[in-house]
Amino acid sequence: MGSSSDLPVMQPALDMLEQLQVPFEVHVVSAHRTPERMVAYAQTAAERGLKVIVAGAGGAAHLPGMVASLTRLPVIGVPVKSSNSIDGWDSILSILQMPAGIPVATVALNGAANAGILAARMIGAFDSALALRLEAYQNSLRQKVMDSAHLPELKPYQFRNNSTFEA
Amino acid sequence: MGSSSDLPVMQPALDMLEQLQVPFEVHVVSAHRTPERMVAYAQTAAERGLKVIVAGAGGAAHLPGMVASLTRLPVIGVPVKSSNSIDGWDSILSILQMPAGIPVATVALNGAANAGILAARMIGAFDSALALRLEAYQNSLRQKVMDSAHLPELKPYQFRNNSTFEA
Amino acid sequence: MGSSSDLPVMQPALDMLEQLQVPFEVHVVSAHRTPERMVAYAQTAAERGLKVIVAGAGGAAHLPGMVASLTRLPVIGVPVKSSNSIDGWDSILSILQMPAGIPVATVALNGAANAGILAARMIGAFDSALALRLEAYQNSLRQKVMDSAHLPELKPYQFRNNSTFEA
Amino acid sequence: MGSSSDLPVMQPALDMLEQLQVPFEVHVVSAHRTPERMVAYAQTAAERGLKVIVAGAGGAAHLPGMVASLTRLPVIGVPVKSSNSIDGWDSILSILQMPAGIPVATVALNGAANAGILAARMIGAFDSALALRLEAYQNSLRQKVMDSAHLPELKPYQFRNNSTFEA
Amino acid sequence: MGSSSDLPVMQPALDMLEQLQVPFEVHVVSAHRTPERMVAYAQTAAERGLKVIVAGAGGAAHLPGMVASLTRLPVIGVPVKSSNSIDGWDSILSILQMPAGIPVATVALNGAANAGILAARMIGAFDSALALRLEAYQNSLRQKVMDSAHLPELKPYQFRNNSTFEA
Amino acid sequence: MGSSSDLPVMQPALDMLEQLQVPFEVHVVSAHRTPERMVAYAQTAAERGLKVIVAGAGGAAHLPGMVASLTRLPVIGVPVKSSNSIDGWDSILSILQMPAGIPVATVALNGAANAGILAARMIGAFDSALALRLEAYQNSLRQKVMDSAHLPELKPYQFRNNSTFEA
Amino acid sequence: MGSSSDLPVMQPALDMLEQLQVPFEVHVVSAHRTPERMVAYAQTAAERGLKVIVAGAGGAAHLPGMVASLTRLPVIGVPVKSSNSIDGWDSILSILQMPAGIPVATVALNGAANAGILAARMIGAFDSALALRLEAYQNSLRQKVMDSAHLPELKPYQFRNNSTFEA
Amino acid sequence: MGSSSDLPVMQPALDMLEQLQVPFEVHVVSAHRTPERMVAYAQTAAERGLKVIVAGAGGAAHLPGMVASLTRLPVIGVPVKSSNSIDGWDSILSILQMPAGIPVATVALNGAANAGILAARMIGAFDSALALRLEAYQNSLRQKVMDSAHLPELKPYQFRNNSTFEA
Repeated sequence: MGSSSDLPVMQPALDMLEQLQVPFEVHVVSAHRTPERMVAYAQTAAERGLKVIVAGAGGAAHLPGMVASLTRLPVIGVPVKSSNSIDGWDSILSILQMPAGIPVATVALNGAANAGILAARMIGAFDSALALRLEAYQNSLRQKVMDSAHLPELKPYQFRNNSTFEA
Repeated sequence: MGSSSDLPVMQPALDMLEQLQVPFEVHVVSAHRTPERMVAYAQTAAERGLKVIVAGAGGAAHLPGMVASLTRLPVIGVPVKSSNSIDGWDSILSILQMPAGIPVATVALNGAANAGILAARMIGAFDSALALRLEAYQNSLRQKVMDSAHLPELKPYQFRNNSTFEA
Repeated sequence: MGSSSDLPVMQPALDMLEQLQVPFEVHVVSAHRTPERMVAYAQTAAERGLKVIVAGAGGAAHLPGMVASLTRLPVIGVPVKSSNSIDGWDSILSILQMPAGIPVATVALNGAANAGILAARMIGAFDSALALRLEAYQNSLRQKVMDSAHLPELKPYQFRNNSTFEA
Repeated sequence: MGSSSDLPVMQPALDMLEQLQVPFEVHVVSAHRTPERMVAYAQTAAERGLKVIVAGAGGAAHLPGMVASLTRLPVIGVPVKSSNSIDGWDSILSILQMPAGIPVATVALNGAANAGILAARMIGAFDSALALRLEAYQNSLRQKVMDSAHLPELKPYQFRNNSTFEA
Repeated sequence: MGSSSDLPVMQPALDMLEQLQVPFEVHVVSAHRTPERMVAYAQTAAERGLKVIVAGAGGAAHLPGMVASLTRLPVIGVPVKSSNSIDGWDSILSILQMPAGIPVATVALNGAANAGILAARMIGAFDSALALRLEAYQNSLRQKVMDSAHLPELKPYQFRNNSTFEA
Repeated sequence: MGSSSDLPVMQPALDMLEQLQVPFEVHVVSAHRTPERMVAYAQTAAERGLKVIVAGAGGAAHLPGMVASLTRLPVIGVPVKSSNSIDGWDSILSILQMPAGIPVATVALNGAANAGILAARMIGAFDSALALRLEAYQNSLRQKVMDSAHLPELKPYQFRNNSTFEA
Repeated sequence: MGSSSDLPVMQPALDMLEQLQVPFEVHVVSAHRTPERMVAYAQTAAERGLKVIVAGAGGAAHLPGMVASLTRLPVIGVPVKSSNSIDGWDSILSILQMPAGIPVATVALNGAANAGILAARMIGAFDSALALRLEAYQNSLRQKVMDSAHLPELKPYQFRNNSTFEA
Repeated sequence: MGSSSDLPVMQPALDMLEQLQVPFEVHVVSAHRTPERMVAYAQTAAERGLKVIVAGAGGAAHLPGMVASLTRLPVIGVPVKSSNSIDGWDSILSILQMPAGIPVATVALNGAANAGILAARMIGAFDSALALRLEAYQNSLRQKVMDSAHLPELKPYQFRNNSTFEA
């Protein structure tokens, strides 16, 4: 991430990787304030054994794209709606609209949880144990919806016309 | 892709995978016109051995997100600026802004070339021969810039103040 | 609705249907977390006797459009300005901009009340008792404006130039 | 429609109603240039036996909303990207964002075909013969995708990795 | 104004007219909930001696444009950023983007004070006493800036480089 | 207008004033290239007998607002979608969003015809002969719609369901 | 700045100039309320020895562009997200989109700190002592990132996979 | 500039510097394809005697901001509306919205001419001969407006009401 102040937004990525048991490291690397550190980090990432890099940044968010230009690894960009961002549009567009040749896998605004899951999906395509954990996670999402579908507060409105539906 | 009319926009993804020697298949699967086919395609993708899915769609583009909800594989979404799109904003937002739990790796508007490269990067993280081809590709991008940096039409303006710069 | 957390936004639709005495059912059906349930729900809706479906969702809101692709019933989409939405633009565009062939009747952002009324109007076109209740409702809207037009706090400013207007 | 110049954009609505064998009438009624005509048209629509009104307009598009305020019938609004429109945003927002109490069923920008289908779906919910024609239409959409999925120009790219998929 | 809930936003227009001693009347007239009242109000405005109409509304704001279509008087539209508005964009575009033939003089979002001043300027062009009051008002604006230019809290930063500027 | 290149966009304002027999003058006055001329023009406009000023400009369009700050006359601003404009958004916002105290009567993007009519409406409120010409003009708009309502190309679709409507 | 109410937003520019030891003056000059004062200020700025002007304004922000048209000095514009601004878009576009011939050096929304630094960079290009202070400032930015990179709250997540990275 | 394909957009900057007799050099330096070259270029720019850097780029335009992070010189950013840009919004926001500490002086979309003039203004503040040329240039802009103000095609509309204005 570009600044330690982005940690609250990026935390769900860490939590998701933890939950899915994907080993990871966390660094603060700023494209604009520590450009040499960014170059060194990105250029050595593949040889250090990393499989994917998640980069979060806000405003004129150059970190994900610059890292992507300095590595051959897949880079996931998280647009952060920071205080100096215009409703997040600047964060999104400066991460998403990369020129042909240097892709960034962009997720939703403040979508750190999805960045963690996406990283796990990439690795899980080559790791059958992780693949099983990912499937279990998706099942848990479904179960949560099914549980809420029978919450008491929804009861009074159900089946008013006596039709029934269960799936 | 959601329609065979998206083929011209998606072609660079095919070309890039071809160039990088990544085996692939191409299908027309529409979220709105063939929803059952989409469900069947996405649910069987992992077991058929696919490692990543690239999905391109325009307007209210539901294909990438729906496919992502039906598989544990990483899904790359290509927002297509189709004729029924509002400058591409609808394509981008309906692919990018997925809820927590179901990520889509979104690339730039009409960014099919980058979708192909991103897919290759994901696989290349686990395939050292492909990793070398990706590095060679990135070197070729750099070389093209260096070549254009000395094109004749740029000559007349260079080094007016007699300073020199070479890198 | 896609999530029980959407209930506060969708409640006015329920209230309006209640007030207009239109029987209805309420379900939580998520396009992304329970795609199979969504398919089953939409495919059986017509045969179960439903006349119209109201679907609310936010962010990359695929529920209304996907339901519309799986039924021949009219589907009303309510763009929800949820916490993961970019000022509601993503919700609106991913519901509104459906491709030719699969329409969604989109109402205003967070416009659940209007979704309820619109559903009632559709049915009221074939139900003369409901049509009368709809006309009474529209009269009540007019009356509320007329009442507020003579509120005390507006008095001091009226008819300063001695002209008179009553309608 | 608000102007005869909108006819090319609205034509697909007429074609779709024709194809689905839904009887209809066509009028030019301008909210701004013939407001009294608009009032008379909308106020008498229900008693003349109409079941749904489709209204297309561009720019500051007041026709759909004003008609909706003068009838109890469902009103479908088609935002037209006319020459005096700002990329269609004005057309969309001035039709979609109706206040609580007066709904307009908004379809996509220039989405006249979908307006026709949506009108047919509303009526088809109460007309079993039309319902069958709507289902046949949806089947034809699916068939078109299936046909294009096997077009010659897609052949060279299919099944590169020898996996097979049919649905 | 379209609703008595718009009064807090519209109040500065009343205050400004009061301050500039321009006689006026205030009515709640809703385009969507009291369309007949709106027609009657607008059609009789000129003959009742009004010289200009100020109309404020939010969301799909049809009141200013519809009033303008029913009178030959100049109509000033105030886009209101109401609770059902998308950051005010819908209010602005549905008032501003009138088709050729029916103008609305649009002021800034929530710009009721300017609507009052603009109305006064229109009348002041034909009323020399009001013209003088308008000039005095503009002088008072200038004076307020000049006063704040010498506020104590600005002192510490002035004239650091010993240059002087007074105008 | 700010540049003679704006003349094609502004021409309809001249035509409309000509048609409504409102005397006028035309000048090129640039806020950025001839600021002193702009100050002199605006400051002397009222004493020279002008009743309203129409100012058209594009991009960062400062002319209408600056003129409004230098006169007590009503100023009508025409946002011009010039070549250096971003789809007209810059032109609109830099004319519309004036601070409290200095109003500009903004019309639609490239809405020069409406600027001419609006100027005529302002003067017509105090000129009964012009008022009559304005009413005749509005009648002509209505007539044009009525004529097009019976154009041959609309015939085939009219009255399919044998209902009749005339107003 | 255009109003003393902009001081809280502009304060970081003053602080940064103070920190970098660049002498400066502060004035309230309003384009719309004190246009003559603005003309006098801008026209005399160069001869009074100023090297660069920083102008902050919000909404239809004409101050930076008008000042730039009245001087040959570089003018830095700070778009202020004031209460009468639409999410800052009006402030940005009315400062940024100047026509060819009259440039404004625009910084980020509410980017007053950067305006101060940019002014210092312009002068520092010709003042070696200031150049050294600018380099020291950039080093301090880097150091702050490095310090936060080893903050305790980041510790638990570092080096999970036993790889190491230091730069 | 980031690509030789940007030359047609950037050419006016070169022309303007030529016209104002400011010595300069031209390089193609891509942030994403030649990141090391960009670092080397920016880090050595000040010591090679450059006084200001103009950087043009489109889409996710990282070149201006990254260069600004690697030098203490003022950097002017030109947002280029390239083919892979979304109406230029991505280019503008990814250049303009730099975080506090690293400013970029952003000019209008495709505003290369203004970038050249702005660079000249920065240097002209310390170079009295260039200052005179800048003043002559601004006079020439004024003269062009004055000339066009008396073009034949404007004649027929001038002074209709027999008032006169000359400045």
